Amino acid sequence: MAPSNVDSIRALIAQAVLFRDERDWAQFHTVKELAISLVVEAGELLQELQWYKEEDQARVAAEKGEALKAELGDVFFSVLLLAHELQVDLGEVFLGKLKKTGEKYPVDKSKGSPRKYTEL
Amino acid sequence: MAPSNVDSIRALIAQAVLFRDERDWAQFHTVKELAISLVVEAGELLQELQWYKEEDQARVAAEKGEALKAELGDVFFSVLLLAHELQVDLGEVFLGKLKKTGEKYPVDKSKGSPRKYTEL
Amino acid sequence: MAPSNVDSIRALIAQAVLFRDERDWAQFHTVKELAISLVVEAGELLQELQWYKEEDQARVAAEKGEALKAELGDVFFSVLLLAHELQVDLGEVFLGKLKKTGEKYPVDKSKGSPRKYTEL
Amino acid sequence: MAPSNVDSIRALIAQAVLFRDERDWAQFHTVKELAISLVVEAGELLQELQWYKEEDQARVAAEKGEALKAELGDVFFSVLLLAHELQVDLGEVFLGKLKKTGEKYPVDKSKGSPRKYTEL
Repeated sequence: MAPSNVDSIRALIAQAVLFRDERDWAQFHTVKELAISLVVEAGELLQELQWYKEEDQARVAAEKGEALKAELGDVFFSVLLLAHELQVDLGEVFLGKLKKTGEKYPVDKSKGSPRKYTEL
Repeated sequence: MAPSNVDSIRALIAQAVLFRDERDWAQFHTVKELAISLVVEAGELLQELQWYKEEDQARVAAEKGEALKAELGDVFFSVLLLAHELQVDLGEVFLGKLKKTGEKYPVDKSKGSPRKYTEL
Repeated sequence: MAPSNVDSIRALIAQAVLFRDERDWAQFHTVKELAISLVVEAGELLQELQWYKEEDQARVAAEKGEALKAELGDVFFSVLLLAHELQVDLGEVFLGKLKKTGEKYPVDKSKGSPRKYTEL
Repeated sequence: MAPSNVDSIRALIAQAVLFRDERDWAQFHTVKELAISLVVEAGELLQELQWYKEEDQARVAAEKGEALKAELGDVFFSVLLLAHELQVDLGEVFLGKLKKTGEKYPVDKSKGSPRKYTEL
């Protein structure tokens, strides 16, 4: 059985590209514009969580669950189109990143610490 | 056959969570901190494309391909952890978003236009 | 006596513009690029404060004081150039904003609350 | 004659702090929250300029002048409060920054170039 469309990054990218091409929007979707879009949408997600104190975060995140989901969907849209434009295999890049980050932050040194690897 | 790990969002989320839990980092990964992380990483991606004029964008994007890929990998890491914390099925949310956006931007009205749906 | 240069917004803008024009950088400093610059620099400032928990914030802000100052200086540079390009009198716009915000958030309703005005 | 209030950074900071203290908002205005606020507001400013092509930027910036001014006012509010919290003299930091940047980007090497100083 093929990977279900809804869990396959490649299938979702294909959907995103189809949506874009039907509207002839590729001309606006330069890498730079998509990067702008990503930072704008990420800012909107963060805005939902602004001003609240740490002890209220869990409650606020729950109350605003639907809004946060929608913003994360917008962010993911930009990520998919960027992956397409940059011809990036998101899964591969991510797993490669995880490996490198694991080398910078070995479990024994980084466990329970928020410090940057240069400060470990 | 199961979806290949590298293309399955759920499998990648499982990897991200495993990586985090080995380092006991869940305590730092509140929804708010992950949203901060997302906006910071998105800013780094955009920074790579700063100052260049439109006619140089394609060349710059090509030259900086590796850096851009790495930054997109960082962004995707935050997206995966956010999806986990918010218990969001990224694919479902994305496809739902696509449907709604399609209603706001019908092909015949939005084709070739950068205008916001409120200005169509 | 004229306002001291170091406290006068107009004098600082004049310095910023002079610096730019000596380098023939106006061609890169479109409003859009300056807005990109602003969001990138703001992201760098936020990055210095990432991951730390609320109870450690005061200590971290103190330790990173110099880095935070430098990032705020970068942000302010973009703000000054944007004010110049948009022909905005920063002080006037700010005082106008304060007046409007004060109407949205009257003292008696907003005192001690982090809620948005639409939720008061 | 004293610097007019509307052009004096220190006078504007005093106004911002007064506004905040009347509402008992200092408790929410940690350095981290103000940095979040800054990045969120900068994102909103950038959003106004999203998707348009370079040749349309001047027209769009003109059409959206009022919205851009208002967003810049929001950004400046965060900058003023951050300067207060970090006990930064904005003018001094900016002039120091300008000096250092001038050393990294000497006029003869950087004139007309968008390159980073590490690439000059």
